Amino acid sequence: MSQSHPFDQAIALTPTAAGKYTGATSPAYANMVGPFGGVTAAVALNAVLQHPALLGEPVALTVNFCAALADGAFTATARSVRTNRSTQHWVVELAQEGETVMTATAITAARRETWSVDDEPMPAVPAPDAVPDPTQSPDVEWVHRYQMRFIEGGIPTDWDGGGSSSQTRLWMREAAPRAFDFCGIAALADVFFPRAWLRRATRVPVGTVSMTVYFHAGAAPLAKLGHGWVLGQARAQAFRNGFFDQTAQLWSEGGHLLATSHQVVYYKA
Amino acid sequence: MSQSHPFDQAIALTPTAAGKYTGATSPAYANMVGPFGGVTAAVALNAVLQHPALLGEPVALTVNFCAALADGAFTATARSVRTNRSTQHWVVELAQEGETVMTATAITAARRETWSVDDEPMPAVPAPDAVPDPTQSPDVEWVHRYQMRFIEGGIPTDWDGGGSSSQTRLWMREAAPRAFDFCGIAALADVFFPRAWLRRATRVPVGTVSMTVYFHAGAAPLAKLGHGWVLGQARAQAFRNGFFDQTAQLWSEGGHLLATSHQVVYYKA
Repeated sequence: MSQSHPFDQAIALTPTAAGKYTGATSPAYANMVGPFGGVTAAVALNAVLQHPALLGEPVALTVNFCAALADGAFTATARSVRTNRSTQHWVVELAQEGETVMTATAITAARRETWSVDDEPMPAVPAPDAVPDPTQSPDVEWVHRYQMRFIEGGIPTDWDGGGSSSQTRLWMREAAPRAFDFCGIAALADVFFPRAWLRRATRVPVGTVSMTVYFHAGAAPLAKLGHGWVLGQARAQAFRNGFFDQTAQLWSEGGHLLATSHQVVYYKA
Repeated sequence: MSQSHPFDQAIALTPTAAGKYTGATSPAYANMVGPFGGVTAAVALNAVLQHPALLGEPVALTVNFCAALADGAFTATARSVRTNRSTQHWVVELAQEGETVMTATAITAARRETWSVDDEPMPAVPAPDAVPDPTQSPDVEWVHRYQMRFIEGGIPTDWDGGGSSSQTRLWMREAAPRAFDFCGIAALADVFFPRAWLRRATRVPVGTVSMTVYFHAGAAPLAKLGHGWVLGQARAQAFRNGFFDQTAQLWSEGGHLLATSHQVVYYKA
């Protein structure tokens, strides 16, 4: 992993004590307000991964977006609250000027070889090379850090209120080559544009409130995938009272389920 | 809500300061080791709901099971880390003898009337009265606190390693009448027996590591449902390296999506 990759620069943390760090938002991942949430989620995970007492690899990560980050410096704190024989529980907090901007919990564990099976098979889709790049994309900086090839449920071109489905399928990968790792997967889980925009072709204000990622592949198999494509699938299950949920799957090009993810998103309507 | 209902007794908290409580596990919800996890999740949520500074209603709850609770007393701490105009972020911790046994985060918010739609329709299933009660059930106490009528994917009767699907559909409700509320829904989200048992008809040791619940119905519509049946649907997406995930939906009998939930579960195999 090269420190010169924009993603690695964006999630870089400088330790100031065990489990305490400083970092800064990166202009390369700027969103409409503050940075792309996927990168902030990756920062929270990185605070765990950089901890000297870390045991094992990430299994679950939940991040709660308490407030939009301001451009600039932040502090991160990762605290191991319980270490068992093969699992470890973490509480993470990101703050700016003394105010909490993100809380997170994570579970790391020693992965073992076990009976395994995928129960959510990758859908039949055209290969990445058979899917064109989009002809237009939202005018926010972070979007340029990813290649996205939409197979189904692309960003509406007519904002006519006429959507009927909330499902998106797309091939995605980082625009500049970078091998897969847990932080990269955590960010990819948040790449999907808001389901509310798709479901009724209306560009309403939105903001992710909480996101969970379950990691189904270990560090070694992830690294082996190199800079491959990921098939992402996302859909909402309910839009109600100003919040919608999103359930998502990420498969390797070879059809392995790398991660499943869920989020709940505020929308104004 | 009657304090004499076993569920209300089990989730009862005695405040010792703002956001600090004592509670105790209830024999009525005993599991194989420690109490039924759904009740512990409800306790964590209750610590938020009883807080004098509470704003709004639960939208999201994530609980992390750090260790099996021992039978007996515990302490709970709920801390509001950020209060925005219409959302509030919470960090919760349960401890026994100074050791953390659960961490949790929750988001509460003021619900508003908005454009709404369910994108995960309730599957076509027979009505609760057309589904028989099971003829046998696991020999753990908490199971008797719920009525469960399995439509599909019931607990295997032949533990022959021969499963082929991880999907369960069942009607469920509390055995003793009790109106729906957020704590009740949080517990219902954990009623499903382990997907690993179903998927290969093998009774392996399991333990939920983390569970998230997104609440799609407000307090008033929930209360209106009274002591109704809930259709629960759960399935796994991946079993890998000693952990599987579960994605679940809870609908009212009338077909409203009340909650969506996810968990990641340790299994020994």
